[in-house]
Amino acid sequence: MSARPRAAIVVTGSELVRGERTDRNGPFYAREALSLGLTPERILIVGDDPADLEAVLRSASDADVCLVSGGLGPTHDDRTVELVARVAGAALRVDPGLEEHIEGVSRAIADRLRRPYADFAAGVTKQATVPDGAVVVGIAGTAPGLVLQGERCVYVVMPGPPGELRRLWPAAVASKPFQSVLARTSPPGRKVLRFYGASESAVAQALAQAGGDGGGVEATICARDFEIHVDLVVEPGAEERADAVANALREPLRRYLFTEDERSVAELVLELCRARGYTLATAESCTGGLVAARLTDVPGASDVVAGGVVAYANHVKARELGVPEELIAEHGAVSAEVAAAMAAGVRRQLGVDVGIAVTGVAGPDGGTEEKPVGLVYHHVSAPDGEHGHHFSLPADRDTIRSRATVAALHLARRVLTRSRHEDV
Amino acid sequence: MSARPRAAIVVTGSELVRGERTDRNGPFYAREALSLGLTPERILIVGDDPADLEAVLRSASDADVCLVSGGLGPTHDDRTVELVARVAGAALRVDPGLEEHIEGVSRAIADRLRRPYADFAAGVTKQATVPDGAVVVGIAGTAPGLVLQGERCVYVVMPGPPGELRRLWPAAVASKPFQSVLARTSPPGRKVLRFYGASESAVAQALAQAGGDGGGVEATICARDFEIHVDLVVEPGAEERADAVANALREPLRRYLFTEDERSVAELVLELCRARGYTLATAESCTGGLVAARLTDVPGASDVVAGGVVAYANHVKARELGVPEELIAEHGAVSAEVAAAMAAGVRRQLGVDVGIAVTGVAGPDGGTEEKPVGLVYHHVSAPDGEHGHHFSLPADRDTIRSRATVAALHLARRVLTRSRHEDV
Repeated sequence: MSARPRAAIVVTGSELVRGERTDRNGPFYAREALSLGLTPERILIVGDDPADLEAVLRSASDADVCLVSGGLGPTHDDRTVELVARVAGAALRVDPGLEEHIEGVSRAIADRLRRPYADFAAGVTKQATVPDGAVVVGIAGTAPGLVLQGERCVYVVMPGPPGELRRLWPAAVASKPFQSVLARTSPPGRKVLRFYGASESAVAQALAQAGGDGGGVEATICARDFEIHVDLVVEPGAEERADAVANALREPLRRYLFTEDERSVAELVLELCRARGYTLATAESCTGGLVAARLTDVPGASDVVAGGVVAYANHVKARELGVPEELIAEHGAVSAEVAAAMAAGVRRQLGVDVGIAVTGVAGPDGGTEEKPVGLVYHHVSAPDGEHGHHFSLPADRDTIRSRATVAALHLARRVLTRSRHEDV
Repeated sequence: MSARPRAAIVVTGSELVRGERTDRNGPFYAREALSLGLTPERILIVGDDPADLEAVLRSASDADVCLVSGGLGPTHDDRTVELVARVAGAALRVDPGLEEHIEGVSRAIADRLRRPYADFAAGVTKQATVPDGAVVVGIAGTAPGLVLQGERCVYVVMPGPPGELRRLWPAAVASKPFQSVLARTSPPGRKVLRFYGASESAVAQALAQAGGDGGGVEATICARDFEIHVDLVVEPGAEERADAVANALREPLRRYLFTEDERSVAELVLELCRARGYTLATAESCTGGLVAARLTDVPGASDVVAGGVVAYANHVKARELGVPEELIAEHGAVSAEVAAAMAAGVRRQLGVDVGIAVTGVAGPDGGTEEKPVGLVYHHVSAPDGEHGHHFSLPADRDTIRSRATVAALHLARRVLTRSRHEDV
């Protein structure tokens, strides 16, 4: 059992418990807790029912820190502050300075919406009602974020909208009650190893041969779209063991290891290009723009990425990328030959150094015995060389598109890496 | 308090409780439960620690149905089946038929990985160990999915990988213990209303004026990227109230209502094009391929979408889309004029009927006082007409790109809808 302070996470929202939206606050809180030296033990998602919320808060209160989000609005359904106070055994009171501030914001909203302030007044008083002893760490609109020292647990109460939670979070971390919990711990060490193309069982086996979890090192293996992410959380004093585990993973899996930090493959491709002054463009069929989108997700991509062509229809492959119609007729749109022509074509058309092309059968329709759903060809054309690759794995449409996108980026990474004379 | 059978959802996975991955099984289970006539009350995410998992299963067991995922693997960390049995008060036994099947699959895996079967044998026996009385509803690889009637709760135990859970789920729903719970309820009625461009407070106000929740109608409002989704869950007998609530929402918000079902705006745009035999292409700058990707997300998009151009660099706007360099020099790449030229250009270049263009400042860099981060121009060029639009809302990069994508699709929808002579 970990000696670190334990964090329980409570997220409230009816659209979350009903599965209409996927929660992002729980994972955010968990990652933050981990990085600060806490152990996230559970994430509890509950709806608006006050009995449910109270029960969940009570069960969470045996942790050292209870991270809560949602239900801070002005309506009668928003019960979080009241219930946290009840569970923490604190009285509620109206904070006059807070009330004045919230009233000011609400009056401005009322004006803008051309509605009478009277509609908002009750909500203002409600949102200015805070538990005795709570520290107000910031305000999102009209909702105050709070930190409250309970009998044994510190409660952090943040707004539901993820952007607002993230904005108020640093002030919550800096608050006195939270800092007193953090004083009992220290951020753990971390090691990250990310592999591409290795099987999950090979990675699990390498880890097992290294002795697996334990001795102050906790390992998590996370596999998606052909990438395998290994995260080691390292307790103080266990650094040697962690080095040994990392070495035991690197050895047999060296050819699959692509980074030891959290940079995405898109970031790595952009950096490899930037280091050589290369520009890049994408030529996509089945991925429909996902490769270009993944690259341009990264801020500052514009100094490398000129753009791309989504050549969904064959006439667009021919017209925009200069793929000869006879080539498509002879080999089919989903072929190594057409992938190569697409990559060369986008390099030429957009005047760039590197062309990344993908063509495949995403499904669910369009597959044949010869070219089944899940067959995808990639090609990267670069000053460093030409390289093609393919995979054929039946799956649902989204999975095929996702894998094809990641595989295209890794092919580019490998082509651009192999040509470097330094030892990578 | 609802009279429907209550569902508690338990998802186990260390990468989930540590926030390394966002859980998708909880929301899936919740949506399914809701559609079957159950009430999802809480989603509990826990790691591998057996004490935590057992505690969470115990607290979940006061529900009528406990939907569990994860921890069904062959390793010693996979404790779900054992702990469900313990909490349910059932003995464990090895099922010989199941063991034979799993052994067969494992021997094939061992051969493929060129490893001795002895490495797998213990895991095979473990995965063939099931609670007395459990119904095996299917197998994902070597992991059996189960349904178990407990003392008061029915446990559904599914694998962690989302694709596998979804594959085995129908058989779990069809199982006798689950069907006996469903016999006590019936799927609720549902009404869906989706709005674009309305403010969340206007929708909340219309709902409040309709009497809000209650009387057998439960409303959830979910806002994202300028869309507002209203979901009404309707108890038997409350259909008239639900109609009244829906009418009270339609009336003041008619011009914002874009669908009364769950079709995405991308699907709607494709259908509008398909109905007229129109083809379509995208010309994107700041969205980097997201609009094309959103459209091609939809199976069967290929009869409408010819493709698109991601014109990230200005020279690509000029060369691939025929946007005059002087226009870019005079008005800037982020302008109504360039958006219009991009839309017309992609129509011409790709030989399609409809061109959708987006150009904007996604940030965090690149903003100026005149053209700040969050300024985005759209243009749709169609036989029905030309229409431009813009918004300017500071936000983070991902949010701006996401909103720009959705706004582009809605502009296309509105242009294609307005020209229809039928009353939409």
